[in-house]
Amino acid sequence: MQLDLGSRETSFIELVQGIRSRLLCIAQVDDTQGFTVIPMQGSGTYGIESALTSLVGPSDSLLVLGNGAYGERMVKIAKRAKRHTVTLSASPTERHDLGALKALLASTPSITHVAVVHCETTTGILNPLSEIASIVKAAGKFLIVDAMSSFGGIPVDMATDDIDCLVSSANKCFESVPGFSIIIVKEQLLALAEGNCPSVSLDLFEQWQALNRDGQFRFTPPTHSLLAFEHALDLLAREGGVASRHARYRANHDRLMRGMLQQGFRPVLNPRWQSPIITAFHCPAEADFSFEVFYRELSSRGMVIYPGKLAGLNCFRIGTIGQLSCDDIDQLLQSIREVMQVMSASKCIERPSGE
Amino acid sequence: MQLDLGSRETSFIELVQGIRSRLLCIAQVDDTQGFTVIPMQGSGTYGIESALTSLVGPSDSLLVLGNGAYGERMVKIAKRAKRHTVTLSASPTERHDLGALKALLASTPSITHVAVVHCETTTGILNPLSEIASIVKAAGKFLIVDAMSSFGGIPVDMATDDIDCLVSSANKCFESVPGFSIIIVKEQLLALAEGNCPSVSLDLFEQWQALNRDGQFRFTPPTHSLLAFEHALDLLAREGGVASRHARYRANHDRLMRGMLQQGFRPVLNPRWQSPIITAFHCPAEADFSFEVFYRELSSRGMVIYPGKLAGLNCFRIGTIGQLSCDDIDQLLQSIREVMQVMSASKCIERPSGE
Repeated sequence: MQLDLGSRETSFIELVQGIRSRLLCIAQVDDTQGFTVIPMQGSGTYGIESALTSLVGPSDSLLVLGNGAYGERMVKIAKRAKRHTVTLSASPTERHDLGALKALLASTPSITHVAVVHCETTTGILNPLSEIASIVKAAGKFLIVDAMSSFGGIPVDMATDDIDCLVSSANKCFESVPGFSIIIVKEQLLALAEGNCPSVSLDLFEQWQALNRDGQFRFTPPTHSLLAFEHALDLLAREGGVASRHARYRANHDRLMRGMLQQGFRPVLNPRWQSPIITAFHCPAEADFSFEVFYRELSSRGMVIYPGKLAGLNCFRIGTIGQLSCDDIDQLLQSIREVMQVMSASKCIERPSGE
Repeated sequence: MQLDLGSRETSFIELVQGIRSRLLCIAQVDDTQGFTVIPMQGSGTYGIESALTSLVGPSDSLLVLGNGAYGERMVKIAKRAKRHTVTLSASPTERHDLGALKALLASTPSITHVAVVHCETTTGILNPLSEIASIVKAAGKFLIVDAMSSFGGIPVDMATDDIDCLVSSANKCFESVPGFSIIIVKEQLLALAEGNCPSVSLDLFEQWQALNRDGQFRFTPPTHSLLAFEHALDLLAREGGVASRHARYRANHDRLMRGMLQQGFRPVLNPRWQSPIITAFHCPAEADFSFEVFYRELSSRGMVIYPGKLAGLNCFRIGTIGQLSCDDIDQLLQSIREVMQVMSASKCIERPSGE
């Protein structure tokens, strides 16, 4: 990130081309299968909005499979852009009902596109992507996948699953810095997308056209984030690729889960549906357990966790992606043990003596 | 940029708050005057789109003053978002006609907002912002200024000129790295903007609400770009603020202009309208002058210039912002002298002998 590359310079254009090619390999497709990679400036949500509002046209109809906050965000984005939108919702702690999906697609021929979140970090649930893809494609619909928090850390085979579009981010499982999102999409879909997007900045068709014309972004890209990303791809390759990274994340998650169970914490999800990305735990049942104190004490020990994101459910979340090893997980578990002791001791102190 | 701050952490929230306060000072307004600063993820164009499509509502009417590519881009953005748009265009080598502006505003009461580019880098022309502001405000319209390539390097007084909204970028006169844009706007305008923006990602109202609520961005910000920006503001202060930076840019530009005139190059613009930001020069009249060769030879000497951006005019552009001193300008002038010699020598060689 210490290099100051001009975004119209040959060396930067080559950097971006290299990143695009390497991402195709990671998605398990090659040039001959008609996919392309389009980086889009901004956060992951910008990439989702770019894909949804460019690929789903004003006369199309989008079905969003929702079981968490990120599915809801897709609905909000599509509705704001005045796209016809249908939702099929499951409880945030349940996987999508595949039978209901099949029935809805059969009974609603107007649906043209289906969107689903691969790993819903609201709870950490991993939705069954291959099974969903198989149903959606058998029904002849286009499939758009929010793989923000899975791609790069969980194997995805876009060719075999026949996924039309996948959106991810530089700063989740690729372990790079924020600044842009990644859209991997069939060129056949892009060719239909001209003029669809109500936003000039987020127009996926025009971004594709510009990158194809001369390898340049239309508008200033975050050059330093792209430089960091090239290095992040080197680190991923050095680790042994997505399968190896997935194994590390899985080992981290398993170690965390064992340690938390030993300390009496209960996970929110059925372990069969749990991703190795982020894990939600119920807050301890004691009425005076304060998440704020818990968070602050852990944070002061250099351990940053996430609050819950489920309305009506008192939980917190622990992420296990990033450059973390089993040692880091052990340190976290030790810190949690300490903090719980501090919290329960301070409660004793607060109680009037003799009661 | 080597720090990895969590975007929901207190230290990052404080960093962003500090940046927002300091930008208010640079715009010469204070908290009590009802302005706020909103950083928006993405390039400068994202910021322009966010401001135009959030502040100009579906029942408003936008007048765009255009004399170059960036005025045209504002028209494209507004039209794509289905905003009613009127344009008043001047030649790219001429400043806006203030009499025509006054007359148009008088004859078209439906206009609610006026947008103008302060420094049009298509040619490097500096439009008369205070004069335009005075006419627009006297007519009771809102004024939105694209100050992408001027703010931070040319003094702007938003309070005195009563500018309603100004959009700029981290990576022009602030000399920081790309990743976000800056929108400085009256809260009174923002309060009217709810639900206007057809994009969720670029919704200025919702970005403002989130930053006001808990100091956090709605979606992952480019944390490293914001860290770099804080340092860039320190460097600006150390240089003596915008007035000092402006003086340096002006000195760089003047030195460049003198040297180029000595070498026989002619500027495109009337010097009275020329900004110190970027300067357009006519390509030499010799039929065999190749800009591609000129650019490549300069680039191989570490000097990166810009191609022309004016249809039908054979010119090139030289930027004089960034961490450049008079020594850099001298080195550039020396390189141009060398390249012109190389180019004219190689032409001699190419000519068959005896002709």
